[in-house]
Order: sequence, then C-alpha cells, then structure tokens
Amino acid sequence: MKKVKIPEATIIRLSVYSRFLSQADERGINTISSGEIAEGVGVSPAQVRKDLAYFGEFGTRGVGYNVKDLQRYITKILGLNRGWSIVIVGAGNLGTAFSRYGGFRKRGFRVVAIFDIDPSKVGNSLNGVCIYHLKQLPEIVKKEKVNIGVIAVPAKSAQEVADNLIGAGIRAILNFAPTSINVDREVELRNVDLSVNLEILTFNLSNYKR
Amino acid sequence: MKKVKIPEATIIRLSVYSRFLSQADERGINTISSGEIAEGVGVSPAQVRKDLAYFGEFGTRGVGYNVKDLQRYITKILGLNRGWSIVIVGAGNLGTAFSRYGGFRKRGFRVVAIFDIDPSKVGNSLNGVCIYHLKQLPEIVKKEKVNIGVIAVPAKSAQEVADNLIGAGIRAILNFAPTSINVDREVELRNVDLSVNLEILTFNLSNYKR
Repeated sequence: MKKVKIPEATIIRLSVYSRFLSQADERGINTISSGEIAEGVGVSPAQVRKDLAYFGEFGTRGVGYNVKDLQRYITKILGLNRGWSIVIVGAGNLGTAFSRYGGFRKRGFRVVAIFDIDPSKVGNSLNGVCIYHLKQLPEIVKKEKVNIGVIAVPAKSAQEVADNLIGAGIRAILNFAPTSINVDREVELRNVDLSVNLEILTFNLSNYKR
Repeated sequence: MKKVKIPEATIIRLSVYSRFLSQADERGINTISSGEIAEGVGVSPAQVRKDLAYFGEFGTRGVGYNVKDLQRYITKILGLNRGWSIVIVGAGNLGTAFSRYGGFRKRGFRVVAIFDIDPSKVGNSLNGVCIYHLKQLPEIVKKEKVNIGVIAVPAKSAQEVADNLIGAGIRAILNFAPTSINVDREVELRNVDLSVNLEILTFNLSNYKR
C-alpha cells in the first residue's frame, strides 16, 4: 500500500490545529471557520484549507467545520485515537522535564518508565514513574508494550542508547541529544535539536536578503 | 526592503547542514558533494541543492563544495556570524536542561541569565549562570543587550512572562510552554511544543492512508 506524501510541515500544523480545536471544544464552541482556526494558531486561512484538503473534504461552505468531528478526524490522522507508551532514557534535567511535560496524557501518551545508569537515580521515581537501570530496558519494553523511546542522554551516549532501544524492539525514537544517530530504515527517528529553534529565530532576526 | 520567502523547512535543514559541515571541517575534510551532505543528514541530494539554491550559486560541478566556504556562508545566512545573548525564564527542569544544553556556545549563543520567582532558587547559579528574580529582567536585558528570551515556565504563566520579556525590550521569543501566547507582529515568536514531535512519529507509525 502506498503512503500519501504529506509535507511534514502539514503534520506539524495538524498537531497545532488539533490542540486549538480541543481548546475550542472545551469552551463549548460547536462550529468553527478556517479563518478562526487560522487566526487562533497564526497561519493563513488558505493554509488551513490546504492542509486539511490532503485528507479529504471537511466542513460546509459558509458554515465551517464541526469542531468535534474535525478534532476526531485529525486525532485519527495523527494516530492519536489509541494510546502510546513511552520510555525515556536519561533521568537528567531534560528527561525529567520531558517526563513532567504537561499535556502528554491528554494526547494519548503515557510515560511508563525512565532509565538511567546512575545508581543514585535508579530505584527513585519521577512524577510516579519509576527510574530503572538501563539493563532492564528489554524486559520493561516487552512487559509494557512500549512504542516510543525518548533519548535524553548526553551526545556521546546517544548512539548506544538508540541501539539499546532498537535491540529491545522499539521502532520509533525521539532523539534530544545534540548529535546525529544512525538507525535502520524501518525505525522512525526524529531528532529534536534545541539549537535549530534558536537558529530559525536568528535567521528571521537577521532578515537575510540575497 | 523585501524579504526573500524561504520555507521554514529549508531553514531547519540549513541549520542541520551547518552542524554537519562543522563536523566535516573538524575531521579535516576540504570539499564535499551534495550527495555526501545528503547522506550525512538523511535527505536527498536534490533537496540539498534546492535548499542551497535559494541563496545563490555554490560549489563547482563535479568537484563539490568547499566545506569551510559553505559553512561560513550558511552561518551568515542563519545570522550566526555574530553573538546572541539569551535569557531563560524558569529555572525548573526544562530551563535547567536548556541552560546546560551542549553546543549552544559554539553556535554563537550565550545564556547570560536565568530568571525565576522562587526565593529558594533566586541567587543560586546554574552552570555558572546566575538565577535572578524576574523583577530584575528589564535591568539585565538592558545591561547585557539580550536578544532572545526563552520561556520555560508552566503554561499558565507563559503569557505573563512573554509580556515581561517584550516589556523589557526583547523582540525574539522561544516558547517551550505548551500553550499559545499572543505577541505583537514585530516580535519573532517560535513555539516549541514537545508533543508535536511525538505526533509526527505517531503519524508515521500509523501509516495514514486516505
């Protein structure tokens, strides 16, 4: 079966629209226009319509979108209509911040375990999530049917941790370590480099002109 | 003067290429092909050429790019040929992780101060960077000529912190709080929602088909 080729920027925006629709739904709003979504999230109405058009026909001209229906549909597109179990490797500041990050649970993400190799951390818990020794990774991944591994260790250990995660059967990795890691093609890898975000700002600030 | 319209995805990739070129330079590599850059960062060679073409003519057909020249040029495009001073608001786990994040300094970013309102934190230092009370923000921003403010506080305080940063004269904000904030048009704002990264993974894992 062939995957539809969707720009990653569209997926990112769907995720943002979805959050906005949740808030609209919580405020009791039933229908919403592409213009209102656009204004709420800071893109153009045409962009909203174009992003949604990748996935079919939504809404009624002149009436707008039903908030609950659209939200349900985007949730399904993003694969959030089921639960996802996450493990975090690295119980340092970043791993701790990630484990405490608000809003994961309501998006269907559950942090089931944190791993570290520091004996002073192993055995403790963060926000009710236990910190295990990294050697227990295969056992926990299997027991908890973990889908996603988050790498929050220093750059020098990132590849080894990725290999451990994959060896334990994980097929999706979010890497926060500021380094490139190599994984097989069948593993979904997303690198989050915190400096990149700063560099988009500095590009805009510098107002580059040819 | 008119800004050239460059896709954000291109800027993100330039930032990634730049990091890769730094590493190549450190390994003593003088020239590199678009294919080698592509393989190193996991995109297609055509994508590398297309991204660079936004900014002019680079490289020599059949020879490739001079690593140092290309790196210097991308650095300039990204606005990294000068230093940038950053303040972080929020000395929790995320602020702490961000202040310690490796690789900022060599990209030209300097964290000059961290702010919090917790009396048990104010007066301490993280990695040699002092934690000040938030009320000292205007004074420090002025004294240190701060360009960028990073918001690493809970969602409920994010808007107030953004207003404080803007009031102190900051015109570029990186927001890690999982909420939308409103800023004037002249302020460069970048929201980093950690769940979005997970949702790109789950989209790919779910293998959405129309």
